[in-house]
Amino acid sequence: MPGARRFGRYGSLVRKVELYYWSGIQGRGEFVRLVLEDLGLPYRDVARESDDGDEAIEKALAGVLAPYAFAVPALRDGELIIPQTVAITRYLGERHGLAPADERGRLLAHAVALTIADLVAEVHDTHHPLSVVDYFEDQKPAARARAKAFREHRLPKFLAYLEGMLGRDPFLFGDRASYADLAAFQVVEGLTFAFPRAMARHRDDIPRLLALRDRIAERPRLATYLASARRLPFNEWGIFRHYPELDR
Amino acid sequence: MPGARRFGRYGSLVRKVELYYWSGIQGRGEFVRLVLEDLGLPYRDVARESDDGDEAIEKALAGVLAPYAFAVPALRDGELIIPQTVAITRYLGERHGLAPADERGRLLAHAVALTIADLVAEVHDTHHPLSVVDYFEDQKPAARARAKAFREHRLPKFLAYLEGMLGRDPFLFGDRASYADLAAFQVVEGLTFAFPRAMARHRDDIPRLLALRDRIAERPRLATYLASARRLPFNEWGIFRHYPELDR
Repeated sequence: MPGARRFGRYGSLVRKVELYYWSGIQGRGEFVRLVLEDLGLPYRDVARESDDGDEAIEKALAGVLAPYAFAVPALRDGELIIPQTVAITRYLGERHGLAPADERGRLLAHAVALTIADLVAEVHDTHHPLSVVDYFEDQKPAARARAKAFREHRLPKFLAYLEGMLGRDPFLFGDRASYADLAAFQVVEGLTFAFPRAMARHRDDIPRLLALRDRIAERPRLATYLASARRLPFNEWGIFRHYPELDR
Repeated sequence: MPGARRFGRYGSLVRKVELYYWSGIQGRGEFVRLVLEDLGLPYRDVARESDDGDEAIEKALAGVLAPYAFAVPALRDGELIIPQTVAITRYLGERHGLAPADERGRLLAHAVALTIADLVAEVHDTHHPLSVVDYFEDQKPAARARAKAFREHRLPKFLAYLEGMLGRDPFLFGDRASYADLAAFQVVEGLTFAFPRAMARHRDDIPRLLALRDRIAERPRLATYLASARRLPFNEWGIFRHYPELDR
């Protein structure tokens, strides 16, 4: 239903926010897409809805997003330009009810989202340990070493942190989901795609985190989104890549 | 004047915030220390003011900071626990007047601080490209490759971003400094220590950023701090390390 999507459930009179991100990957932009989809906010995924494709992103970085955005994702909401994944998801979450209501919870949701962003950066470095401008194929031995250190030392530590943050409540901060819960869902999905063997070894260590993952996937708007063509598949151009040699 | 410092300019009745960070390095904690010092807030630098030294940090991560903090720096302000460098500096800045007053500026200050945090993470990876649990000496060839890519592709891009964010105003967001300006100061100081040759090559490209650096260093409370023993020197245990072979 491209028409229904184009105008959103609030109708065409509502100003849509604009998401600037690459069209062919989940990447960091997916953390923003999940929040937008869960909130049911009308948005324009600029590169995917433009004839220019990713060229629209290059143009925006030199144009409407300059000098504010170092990179994408970036969000435009009327006069506001918001770069940086966590800044965007926090902004949307706090403004639209996908964040804790109290200051203590808001500070911790922000911290959890930032910690997940750090984890994502470390995942990226497993396949690009030496240079982001060179191909994975040109840095394989280093990637194997980095991935080994990641699997052995960093992954267990990050997973234990997220598991420890989850108490008896269904979500990180009580009875209601936050943008940090959605980020936890996405990073578990990505890790499971990229490191299926390593993640299988940790299955019994993270029952709450896996239950959270399932709970998030079942949220009605997200379930619809995840089953739609709007949810791009993981692939070998994004941040989460499955290279068996990096997942011993 | 340890006494004057211990009780702060507000006197001993004021509850002090507690900074949890390693005692021997500037590291990420320095971004927080600079904000606390510039604000003149009474604070306890826990590891540096404890007989336990860094052991106090290990204890806190397993105790008062658990399960909230994945790592340090973390700040404790009464009942609030705030992990993550940018979350801490933003909290202090927005609460105490070291942040833009308007939403647009607040969102952008947050984004700039996050981008600087990304830059800091990339600097860290120049000397630890393969594993954070191994020594630099055990990953030198990879470090040389990573540092080369950083110097050639990433450093110029980050510097151009920060320079581009600076307009004709004295600070990033007008006439008043923000925590993002202090972060820009610190990252320029760190880069100049770690990569003096590479930074010298960029001197003419970043006149506004270098002027900002000087302007921040001259702020009265920061000038006092920077000249004091509280300001740790850069060294080869922190994030910004000077290894000549990584700075061709």
